[in-house]
Amino acid sequence: MGTVTQRLERLGIVLPKLAVPSGNYAPCRISGTTLYVSGQVPRVDGVDAFQGIVGQDVSAKQAREAARVAAINMLAQVSRALGGDLDRVTGCLQLRGFVNAAPGFTDHPAVIDGASDLIVEVLGDCGRHARTALGAGTLPRAFAVEIDAVFEVRA
Amino acid sequence: MGTVTQRLERLGIVLPKLAVPSGNYAPCRISGTTLYVSGQVPRVDGVDAFQGIVGQDVSAKQAREAARVAAINMLAQVSRALGGDLDRVTGCLQLRGFVNAAPGFTDHPAVIDGASDLIVEVLGDCGRHARTALGAGTLPRAFAVEIDAVFEVRA
Amino acid sequence: MGTVTQRLERLGIVLPKLAVPSGNYAPCRISGTTLYVSGQVPRVDGVDAFQGIVGQDVSAKQAREAARVAAINMLAQVSRALGGDLDRVTGCLQLRGFVNAAPGFTDHPAVIDGASDLIVEVLGDCGRHARTALGAGTLPRAFAVEIDAVFEVRA
Repeated sequence: MGTVTQRLERLGIVLPKLAVPSGNYAPCRISGTTLYVSGQVPRVDGVDAFQGIVGQDVSAKQAREAARVAAINMLAQVSRALGGDLDRVTGCLQLRGFVNAAPGFTDHPAVIDGASDLIVEVLGDCGRHARTALGAGTLPRAFAVEIDAVFEVRA
Repeated sequence: MGTVTQRLERLGIVLPKLAVPSGNYAPCRISGTTLYVSGQVPRVDGVDAFQGIVGQDVSAKQAREAARVAAINMLAQVSRALGGDLDRVTGCLQLRGFVNAAPGFTDHPAVIDGASDLIVEVLGDCGRHARTALGAGTLPRAFAVEIDAVFEVRA
Repeated sequence: MGTVTQRLERLGIVLPKLAVPSGNYAPCRISGTTLYVSGQVPRVDGVDAFQGIVGQDVSAKQAREAARVAAINMLAQVSRALGGDLDRVTGCLQLRGFVNAAPGFTDHPAVIDGASDLIVEVLGDCGRHARTALGAGTLPRAFAVEIDAVFEVRA
């Protein structure tokens, strides 16, 4: 059993089985050792959750939890693209975190920490990434956060 | 005549000749087999079009058409960067679609499908990409959508 | 003394010493010859500056200066990641510029030119990048702009 799988067990995280997108896009694309993941949202077991404006309908603390849930979904997508073997991930290179924030909201980094922390808890030090946290104007289905990322993987 | 050129003909799409940006940036940059394209907007024959807020001045259906037009402009930029040979494209890796949406708008994916569908129609299955669709706060010249992307190309 | 260092001297630019992020992310990540930089803001000597909404509290001209300052911070991060040797940079591949703009603001490119111009002044022609300029909904600590980028470096 790989290191990452052991960490997931220790953290009590079960990666969800996710629906394949119906449109003309893919959850992940791999080119060489670079893996690109589609934007992930805080759906829980396939059900929409964490919807609303952060700093208005959704607290910063709830949004941080939403970012963590979106990151778990992201790792589920990466795992599937790698045939279930997350030990093939050699790094998280870049993470973008978009917060569906109310005017005047300024603490995007604390929200996106929910995703960054989860990724490093699961992947270890190689999970530390270049990061951009910012506010979207609006988000699909009014989710509180959306994240996407680029990973480095063993070919 | 290459496969992509044949598909463009069959679809009745003529790639526009685009102006080179006047600023200190480039339409495309290539590093190894990775090609980065600058943000593309739905200008038609060099003339601004599809301007306004989606879900207010511009319908979701019009915005989807705007995303398609921006994707045609994107392929025109990629083609020029590859000396006119779009058959050198081996994949679309990542697409970001920004929608200039009104507060409360939630169907960004349907809008950006206009770009994703066009790219797959023209490039075939290798055009399927990791994708992030979201709402911008505002967009240059009030365009309804803006898209950028990363492609994989033969060196 | 390298070419880039000479250019910085001629331009009178001293790269600031920046704080290391406290969270689970990194200023830069390198994979092969690709370097990803975290989102940079227009902090001056570690002090927040250029805060407010562009086209309302902050003029377009001030925002352009903010973009220039953020680009200087970005080069400082890249320099540190490369052991102080910016001559290892062989290109700026992609730049994203997010403007904290008021509703109705449309001249994002002129703002982000502040960053693009600085990068080309310092790196020369290889600094020309694919670019996307757009408006954020909100930005961390209400900064007027935030930029991130992907560079090509000598391994």
